[in-house]
Amino acid sequence: MKRTGGGEMRETSTIGIDIGGTAIKLGIVGASGTVLSEAELDSPIGLSQQEAVAEIARAATELREALARRTSGAGMPCAVGMGSAGLVSSEAGVVHTSPNLPRWRDVPLAARVGRALNLPAFLLNDANAFTLAEARLGAGAGASPVVGVTLGTGVGGAIVLDGRLLDGVHGFAGEVGHMSVAYEGPLCPCGNRGCLELYVGRRGLVASYLRRAKWRLGEAAYELAGGDRDALDPRLLAAAAQRGDRAAETAFAVAGEILGVGLANLANLVDPQRFVVGGGVSRAGDLLLAPAERALRARVMMGAERAPQIRRAALGMSAGLIGAALYAADRVGDEERIG
Amino acid sequence: MKRTGGGEMRETSTIGIDIGGTAIKLGIVGASGTVLSEAELDSPIGLSQQEAVAEIARAATELREALARRTSGAGMPCAVGMGSAGLVSSEAGVVHTSPNLPRWRDVPLAARVGRALNLPAFLLNDANAFTLAEARLGAGAGASPVVGVTLGTGVGGAIVLDGRLLDGVHGFAGEVGHMSVAYEGPLCPCGNRGCLELYVGRRGLVASYLRRAKWRLGEAAYELAGGDRDALDPRLLAAAAQRGDRAAETAFAVAGEILGVGLANLANLVDPQRFVVGGGVSRAGDLLLAPAERALRARVMMGAERAPQIRRAALGMSAGLIGAALYAADRVGDEERIG
Repeated sequence: MKRTGGGEMRETSTIGIDIGGTAIKLGIVGASGTVLSEAELDSPIGLSQQEAVAEIARAATELREALARRTSGAGMPCAVGMGSAGLVSSEAGVVHTSPNLPRWRDVPLAARVGRALNLPAFLLNDANAFTLAEARLGAGAGASPVVGVTLGTGVGGAIVLDGRLLDGVHGFAGEVGHMSVAYEGPLCPCGNRGCLELYVGRRGLVASYLRRAKWRLGEAAYELAGGDRDALDPRLLAAAAQRGDRAAETAFAVAGEILGVGLANLANLVDPQRFVVGGGVSRAGDLLLAPAERALRARVMMGAERAPQIRRAALGMSAGLIGAALYAADRVGDEERIG
Repeated sequence: MKRTGGGEMRETSTIGIDIGGTAIKLGIVGASGTVLSEAELDSPIGLSQQEAVAEIARAATELREALARRTSGAGMPCAVGMGSAGLVSSEAGVVHTSPNLPRWRDVPLAARVGRALNLPAFLLNDANAFTLAEARLGAGAGASPVVGVTLGTGVGGAIVLDGRLLDGVHGFAGEVGHMSVAYEGPLCPCGNRGCLELYVGRRGLVASYLRRAKWRLGEAAYELAGGDRDALDPRLLAAAAQRGDRAAETAFAVAGEILGVGLANLANLVDPQRFVVGGGVSRAGDLLLAPAERALRARVMMGAERAPQIRRAALGMSAGLIGAALYAADRVGDEERIG
């Protein structure tokens, strides 16, 4: 079994698992990135570690058995990859902290799921999984370096070079959202100040809107939210901006410009061929991405004419599980080459 | 001739050239990074392109002939690598702009020197050359990723992964000095705002000192400079701080803290095992690096206990030419593998 960086033919498959805030998605993914079968479990937020591991193992075993019946045992998964939000150590296979698993601390998830499935198991940050999948098979295909940026409740990211993830020494690389763009800026829960996430993440966007709105009848966001501040989120604000809500438009324009500052920093550091932007907030589209691109082109050292392209993600909701599966295949391949 | 990432035995050598502001340094460098012979030319600042290429070719030819006499023609250089400050495209071999070559714009230096020496020629940014050499043979040896940061008139840097330079698509990667840490900060000549270089580079440090000093007798910096503001530079300010000049101490402490913000951003993005810091301003040592390390440890997402080490450069003034030579050997090796 030989392989290099790309995604050429291999005999086996891997299991990819995306541990999200609202659901756990699982899939068996072929060597070329094709999803052979998929399943979805409820949110893991309320589960203990034992319960979550047991649920994951049960669902993965079902997928594996169904595949074995279909293929008479050919192409069975040789490893499992798991993507999770939060501070995740790929090197140790440990979820240190995660917003999706609030009761968990320093959990050796890779070892536990690996033991339950009797497969080599690998863990990575969910934005790293997203970027790996998009770089190989999605909006980044054919480009290198690819820098992925996920815009959601939090802001994440990753760097992929020639189809391989830049992991870093612990697997913490790619924390784009915690790049400080204002060293004396507001304090971030991560301990830093002026992090990109504070301006571009869900909470920052909503706060920025509320600072600009009068919050009264006649404003589209107020009406769409039925006057309930807690109903505000980027999707609602995008709808309001499209109906002419100036405060909502401005909130996106400001967030987009600061996102562009972050992209310019990334461009100056990595000189990527392409940015791939995904996550719920990116659905605001040009409201956010047009000012981001303007700021990127104005600020980047290499000049506007050489600035990297910005593309929206192409793989949809399966990017996380596909990327986790590809990562597991890469790691198994590395270990075989070394071992 | 086989090679991988590291610096194992090869039959040949390469020529490394470091085009600095005060001198051009040349050397023939063996495969393991040993400098076999060295020469130095005067500053290229006044020279036309033709003159500079002719001077470089003449000096390199002399080194080559002297080596041939010593070795009876064995181990002759198979390529030439050149490091230069400024916006340098490794991909195209072009110096777009450089503070050391103010009369030059978009000069295809690699092609010209290569033709003059009849060798494959490669160009890279001087901070990239510094980092490559330090990562393989100096203060970064044994670690990966290594992020190099050069502190001088300007602030540069580079990322080395498993002994290989992260070039980016044009060879512009590693522009650490133009990472914005204050998106609404002062305008930088590069077009961005709040760039790290504005706070940590020579000019920023001197300006920060002057804002804090009364600039009168009794202040160590004033006396060391003989009252001449133009004599102020980081070396003098470091000497003044060591004699108890509070304004100078504070200027370093503030610059160091902002440097630490930049290092924390780099740590969050790359998760390096080690930082290697070099360049003239780094000679201020703990005046600058102690506050930088405190800020890094306080701000980095992975937590102080996992923060990367900061080491001072170990290879001295030859790092640039060694790195340029190693880069040429890498690129020749890549082309042989592909070709």
